[in-house]
Amino acid sequence: MSPEIELDHWHDRYAKRTSRMRTSAVRDLMAVADQPDIIALSGGMPETGVFEETLRPIAEELLVDEAARTLQYGPSQGIVTLREQICDLMFEEGMHVHPDDVLITVGAQQALEFLGKVLLDDGDTVVIEEPSYVGALNAFLSYEAQFETIPTDVSGMDIDALDERLGDMDTPPKFVYVIPNFQNPGGATLSLERRQQLIDVVNKHDVILVEDNPYGRLRFKGDTLPTLRSLDDSVVYLGTFSKIFSPGVRVGWIVAPPALRDRLLHAKQAADLCSSMLNQRLVEEFFKRGLFEPHLKKLIEIYSGRAEVMAKALKKHFPAEATWSDSEGGFFVWAKLPEYLDTTEMLAEALAKKVAYVPGSGFFPDGRGKEAIRLSFGAVGHDKIRQGISVLGEVIKGQMELYESLKF
Amino acid sequence: MSPEIELDHWHDRYAKRTSRMRTSAVRDLMAVADQPDIIALSGGMPETGVFEETLRPIAEELLVDEAARTLQYGPSQGIVTLREQICDLMFEEGMHVHPDDVLITVGAQQALEFLGKVLLDDGDTVVIEEPSYVGALNAFLSYEAQFETIPTDVSGMDIDALDERLGDMDTPPKFVYVIPNFQNPGGATLSLERRQQLIDVVNKHDVILVEDNPYGRLRFKGDTLPTLRSLDDSVVYLGTFSKIFSPGVRVGWIVAPPALRDRLLHAKQAADLCSSMLNQRLVEEFFKRGLFEPHLKKLIEIYSGRAEVMAKALKKHFPAEATWSDSEGGFFVWAKLPEYLDTTEMLAEALAKKVAYVPGSGFFPDGRGKEAIRLSFGAVGHDKIRQGISVLGEVIKGQMELYESLKF
Repeated sequence: MSPEIELDHWHDRYAKRTSRMRTSAVRDLMAVADQPDIIALSGGMPETGVFEETLRPIAEELLVDEAARTLQYGPSQGIVTLREQICDLMFEEGMHVHPDDVLITVGAQQALEFLGKVLLDDGDTVVIEEPSYVGALNAFLSYEAQFETIPTDVSGMDIDALDERLGDMDTPPKFVYVIPNFQNPGGATLSLERRQQLIDVVNKHDVILVEDNPYGRLRFKGDTLPTLRSLDDSVVYLGTFSKIFSPGVRVGWIVAPPALRDRLLHAKQAADLCSSMLNQRLVEEFFKRGLFEPHLKKLIEIYSGRAEVMAKALKKHFPAEATWSDSEGGFFVWAKLPEYLDTTEMLAEALAKKVAYVPGSGFFPDGRGKEAIRLSFGAVGHDKIRQGISVLGEVIKGQMELYESLKF
Repeated sequence: MSPEIELDHWHDRYAKRTSRMRTSAVRDLMAVADQPDIIALSGGMPETGVFEETLRPIAEELLVDEAARTLQYGPSQGIVTLREQICDLMFEEGMHVHPDDVLITVGAQQALEFLGKVLLDDGDTVVIEEPSYVGALNAFLSYEAQFETIPTDVSGMDIDALDERLGDMDTPPKFVYVIPNFQNPGGATLSLERRQQLIDVVNKHDVILVEDNPYGRLRFKGDTLPTLRSLDDSVVYLGTFSKIFSPGVRVGWIVAPPALRDRLLHAKQAADLCSSMLNQRLVEEFFKRGLFEPHLKKLIEIYSGRAEVMAKALKKHFPAEATWSDSEGGFFVWAKLPEYLDTTEMLAEALAKKVAYVPGSGFFPDGRGKEAIRLSFGAVGHDKIRQGISVLGEVIKGQMELYESLKF
């Protein structure tokens, strides 16, 4: 290559934080998952094919009768009537929240971004479950976070381990981030006993607790457990309409005590001025017209059925050496394969055979998890789940045989 | 107050950058401008009351026929067909851009936020026009930017002054940020000669140039001038549908060379995963169905008429000591009042009399501009423009009389 060729003339201009912003090798592979002939067990996509004619009158109201308002700027904090509806929704889960304490965001992802921007200086620590949501890791990494990871089991985060770790840390972490229900990607749900214990531990160590609850309403078996926010008003709470209505509208929210909420609101103004009026009004009308209850019932039925189909398929097609989560809700399964496998390397073969999954290592900040995969049945029908798991089973078994044949 | 009352228990937890994120005293006053009986000459709101029945078939297609796709997640970079349409739109303004180089953002504001996140370390300098867009200042401030401001006149930024300043700086700035057409808030348009000169100067000093062009298509008199991006492919270009279609859909874009665009894409993934599919598809259909050309024509007619009405009203009602911009497009007027006036203080009185404007100091990073105001006729009808300017004229004259009476 001639020395005159400059690959990036501005290579020395970027902010330091960009070195922590992850270039995911997986992302390029995942772009393939958009192709229609791929069975995408990868994305966290919910089912959106069930609206039929329900949105027709709303569409007309928003884009014809009320277009002048819908197509205009809105308040940075979000429409007050939608914030009131969010409070009603949270009340159904035992939380008492004032609309003033709610900030509407572009999905819960934007709330994660804002927590990073408002709370994290270079090198600050965030405590997370292991594994934890890759989108949260990326948002916090983009503000140069360090991570402390706490082991989890079928009952969620090990709170004794958390207590000990918090006691050992020289500098306290900025916050503890947990997904208590049907965790992404692990599938575990934090037990009732541990919820109370978690509140006690963060209060004892005076650490901010962030609860991310996108899947809480999507429970298809077992008993509903109280949210952390319902146990303690100082918990920072993230909600979203992405999984219970639509991710395509990008409407989520964050509830935080006034001083933090003010700073989050400044972040919102700098980030994008305000959320889309059209999307906010669409969500508002969907709830106002009583469409949510029957929709949620339908979703739970769908996910319950798909969970069962996937569990059966895994049992049939995955090797005896594999284990996987048995979640009571949501739409993720976390599968652990023999530890000598590298699921990032294996992805190319699976994609060549038209099946996509997410390799486990993305859900750890430190390269662990390479033997695990996350599977989603959110937007995949029964036949494709069976077919996808069957193909994946073959790929895994092939890799295992290859490993065995190379051992000496 | 009892010492037990903690105003903010977490006061020591916030990131350092939050101290630069502006708490605008004006924001609280401006919240009042939402009230229906206020004549809002304040916001940068475009006219959105002209769609009539045009969106009805699109609404049905998006939320009934195609709901499953519209309500789903989309690609982080944005829908490729919309990116292609953006390239067509830019081609109409003489710019040759590939869809791969376009990143869809939540309005152009999100592109400003990303430029801050990706390019600015604490203390880095951004060169701006004086005055400049308050939303850009806030986005860059939130990444702890320093500013160098360059004087402007009716032909835009003084490029000789820029050249000199760039030569004097010990550490080069990260980028130069300009709004060449109908500048917000100053109203000036960068002359053709200075456009070429600006390109030469930034190339000479090897500095990134960022062109923000929300109003370029809204020219109602004079000749269209080439965009900076059409003169040099290395210019980073920000566009938006907010002013030419709708701000309520929050769809903008940024065009940047590949390496920078990749980092902006990582910022997008951390910030909100992807932009709203519904909004992207709505914009796409609006253009695909040929609705843009007649709509733009209508807008230009409307703004041209309102500009004339405002100019006449200013001449009639503002004191002889005031001066104001005479823009060839867009919908802002920048008025300078006697320098002893403080337009931030004056705002409360104007709001009490039901008229809102934006005080000038927000458009400077250093507290200057307190004698100026920004007026917008974007979403205000003729009668209300006349009435609003009449009331403002009275308020200003009252303040001037008060000042005279207190002089000794």
